[in-house]
Amino acid sequence: MSARIIDGKAIAQELRDAIAAEVAGIAARGGGQPGLAVVLVGNDPASEVYVGSKARQTVAVGMRSFEYRLPADVPEADLLALVDRLNRDDAVDGILVQLPLPGHIDANRVIEAIDPDKDVDGFHPVNAGRLLIGLPGLVPCTPLGSLLLLQSVHHDLSGLSAVVVGRSNIVGKPLAQLLLQQNATVTIAHSRTRDLPAVCRGADILVAAVGRPEMVRGDWIRPGATVIDVGINRLPPAPGAAKGRLVGDVAFEEARTVAGAITPVPGGVGPMTIACLLRNTLQAFKARHGVS
Amino acid sequence: MSARIIDGKAIAQELRDAIAAEVAGIAARGGGQPGLAVVLVGNDPASEVYVGSKARQTVAVGMRSFEYRLPADVPEADLLALVDRLNRDDAVDGILVQLPLPGHIDANRVIEAIDPDKDVDGFHPVNAGRLLIGLPGLVPCTPLGSLLLLQSVHHDLSGLSAVVVGRSNIVGKPLAQLLLQQNATVTIAHSRTRDLPAVCRGADILVAAVGRPEMVRGDWIRPGATVIDVGINRLPPAPGAAKGRLVGDVAFEEARTVAGAITPVPGGVGPMTIACLLRNTLQAFKARHGVS
Ligand SMILES: NC(=O)c1ccc[n+]([C@@H]2O[C@H](COP(=O)([O-])OP(=O)(O)OC[C@H]3O[C@@H](n4cnc5c(N)ncnc54)[C@H](OP(=O)(O)O)[C@@H]3O)[C@@H](O)[C@H]2O)c1
Ligand SMILES: NC(=O)c1ccc[n+]([C@@H]2O[C@H](COP(=O)([O-])OP(=O)(O)OC[C@H]3O[C@@H](n4cnc5c(N)ncnc54)[C@H](OP(=O)(O)O)[C@@H]3O)[C@@H](O)[C@H]2O)c1
Repeated sequence: MSARIIDGKAIAQELRDAIAAEVAGIAARGGGQPGLAVVLVGNDPASEVYVGSKARQTVAVGMRSFEYRLPADVPEADLLALVDRLNRDDAVDGILVQLPLPGHIDANRVIEAIDPDKDVDGFHPVNAGRLLIGLPGLVPCTPLGSLLLLQSVHHDLSGLSAVVVGRSNIVGKPLAQLLLQQNATVTIAHSRTRDLPAVCRGADILVAAVGRPEMVRGDWIRPGATVIDVGINRLPPAPGAAKGRLVGDVAFEEARTVAGAITPVPGGVGPMTIACLLRNTLQAFKARHGVS
Repeated sequence: MSARIIDGKAIAQELRDAIAAEVAGIAARGGGQPGLAVVLVGNDPASEVYVGSKARQTVAVGMRSFEYRLPADVPEADLLALVDRLNRDDAVDGILVQLPLPGHIDANRVIEAIDPDKDVDGFHPVNAGRLLIGLPGLVPCTPLGSLLLLQSVHHDLSGLSAVVVGRSNIVGKPLAQLLLQQNATVTIAHSRTRDLPAVCRGADILVAAVGRPEMVRGDWIRPGATVIDVGINRLPPAPGAAKGRLVGDVAFEEARTVAGAITPVPGGVGPMTIACLLRNTLQAFKARHGVS
């Protein structure tokens, strides 16, 4: 068997197209324009690239993009003051403070300063709580994207056995809650899990969000299972090469011979994250303006 | 084999004794006295009994108990005004609005009106979020009590496989998060789970929080597993009897021959709930007064 490859790039494009159409429709009705503010502190090169793509994609779907760049040594109070200003700015529907932040800034304090209804990263405790309780709220982008990829394969996740390996606040734990809401039977595994291969073999749906290159082997996968590989790991460069290859947390070549469907790395979960950020921004706009 | 019976009554008593000693110590240092406010709307007989025991046990550990009784037809605005007054009342460290509330009152709105730092039921979305994220906060009482019972058997839950059957906001979901924090590998099962007996048989720790009398049978239990039975169900009365027997969600007589340890019903999880409410009230007092 050779697994169906889940094309995250194409699915993210479809999602962005749908968002762009909805944004255009709102504008045509004179309903206003959603806006996303992204705050970057310092100049970490990876964050720069990420913030740049966010801005480009925001504009591409017809939303307004506001970029704020603060020096690496900005006092925490100044950052909090900016967040407060964005909270009160009616043109801003979504606020994202790019992580990681420099060590002198308390990231939790900054996240908690964001208006939960503009917290398009879904990291505010109020949004985490809404997710746990099952109230409407903003959900972290990568787990949301992972769910949408799963739903492109399974019309209904009800009763399926899902194993999520990894329990971070930004991926594993929120994704487990989303799968539970979809009526999967959910197991959360992590570094203390005993006999992880056997736990994984119990999964109809296997999600790896670990950060260990190719840790999940082919024989950890139940034949026909759907595998979502959230990991993005860069291998050491081959001799003579400038950059190493990007791989996921799943040994793709082994896994594709066993799985029923699988996301590649790159081109799987990765492209979904920004698309879901735009989806969250649109959702925040609609909630704030009472558009249904 | 015959399982060790986990004596919730005795463990709850120990917990209350420890709380009473700590409250007395705080008073002796002139550090003040924790206070718990309980609000009862209407006169549901079960709620009356429950509120009565809460008040008695609160006073017994040396805390102040404030009871508020409102008529069943109280306008929601009046209840919200009372909550607001209790939020601002410095003598009140914990606020509990007894559920269920009459149909004309939006329970979510009332819960969200409680200051999260006084929310000793742990039902506020902010406390749910803190639990999911792993920040300090107030945790719902029944799951907390269930965890303490488990810890009376297992010094360390790390790496154990835990299955929680039931995913309510007041028991199953918060308990799953607590077990995950303790480094168990956690599976959450529910009414859509396929082959529930097999899922349960995978558990070193099996928690039933379902509300179905004696649903979990002896042969669903792995030999030696620890079983926590959260269920409280009253059977129909036997002919001639006034009241039916109380049973849990686990078929106790079957289970005790297989399990390594098990909670009885009554006398297992039940007594822990109010003891944990007092623990939460003390925790809220200490956090509010900067006592460590
Ligand atoms: N846009 C995207 O596609 C996107 C977004 C976010 C993250 N990612 C990628 O996803 C991966 C995970 O990210 P993250 O932020 O969730 O990572 P993280 O915060 O480092 O969490 C990793 C999780 O994996 C668990 N783990 C570590 N080693 C393990 C092992 N040997 N066996 C089982 N579990 C193990 C850890 O368990 P403990 O809790 O027990 O330590 C932890 O829960 C990374 O590769 C990251 O680059 C991609
Ligand atoms: N102080 C205490 O000791 C205390 C406190 C609270 C509750 N309790 C008792 O604990 C029990 C559960 O209370 P709760 O408030 O959590 O109940 P609940 O809100 O009714 O939730 C019950 C859960 O059980 C699941 N369930 C129902 N039928 C099932 C089946 N056949 N197989 C598998 N799962 C099934 C439901 O699944 P779905 O989500 O799929 O519907 C739901 O998640 C009750 O007996 C209650 O009296 C005791």
